[in-house]
Amino acid sequence: MRGVALSDLHCSVARALDIVGERWTLLVLRDAFQGKRRFEEFSQSLPIARNVLASRLKTLVEHGILERRQYEERPPRFEYRLTDKGRDLYPVIVALVQWGDRYLAGEAGPPLDIFHRDCGGHVGVDAVCRGCGEVISARDANGVYRALPGLA
Amino acid sequence: MRGVALSDLHCSVARALDIVGERWTLLVLRDAFQGKRRFEEFSQSLPIARNVLASRLKTLVEHGILERRQYEERPPRFEYRLTDKGRDLYPVIVALVQWGDRYLAGEAGPPLDIFHRDCGGHVGVDAVCRGCGEVISARDANGVYRALPGLA
Repeated sequence: MRGVALSDLHCSVARALDIVGERWTLLVLRDAFQGKRRFEEFSQSLPIARNVLASRLKTLVEHGILERRQYEERPPRFEYRLTDKGRDLYPVIVALVQWGDRYLAGEAGPPLDIFHRDCGGHVGVDAVCRGCGEVISARDANGVYRALPGLA
Repeated sequence: MRGVALSDLHCSVARALDIVGERWTLLVLRDAFQGKRRFEEFSQSLPIARNVLASRLKTLVEHGILERRQYEERPPRFEYRLTDKGRDLYPVIVALVQWGDRYLAGEAGPPLDIFHRDCGGHVGVDAVCRGCGEVISARDANGVYRALPGLA
């Protein structure tokens, strides 16, 4: 991203977006969560230039979100797999799916259904209180800055 | 965003990012969730040019995520308030906070604590099964495209 480095802002949202907020990066991750691992699979799924895709994958590997593994020796072939740090982005993706499904789906309905493998239920995402377990809306919550009162 | 319109892709993540994925937009929303309403409040919080901020606010109003309301007649003054559609983006923001806190916080610890007003517990976000209520990881879920098998 250009301009002010989001990572310099005293904010976890800004720091997270500095890594995953680049155009296409969250769609690369969406594909990774769908089971795609190989460059050609990502390339077929995403309408972007190969050098842009290569750059996004490189950034994700550098930040430990994807791991690049050799899966064949001759010829040498590599695949990209989600790390634990990468898998922990799952709620971000599902939250975007849920909101997009609710407000932006066309007449054909939501394009992607996410199911729980065990029971077949739909998967969604909630903000929850780690104390009492209640589902939380923005009105129920209070954000407190620990150190600096603002950003800069 | 430039290039291929994300909104044309058959994917709720892509469509959502076409609106909220622009640089700074999610930080404007973060501020709105923190209670900021006036142009000057956003402007003081975010290190961006006023015309860029104005453009982001305009986009959010056009998409019904923020509502522009006059709160004073003389002189005419306006504020920006989250709509229901906007408030439903809360899990996206909290999911980014949670991931950033876990992996990107510096030595000072997470910059922002989000508390449940009622019980004082920390607020987080989980992917959950709407059927059985279980908390879901990416491994537990299966995404099925309803119409088109791919994107384009």
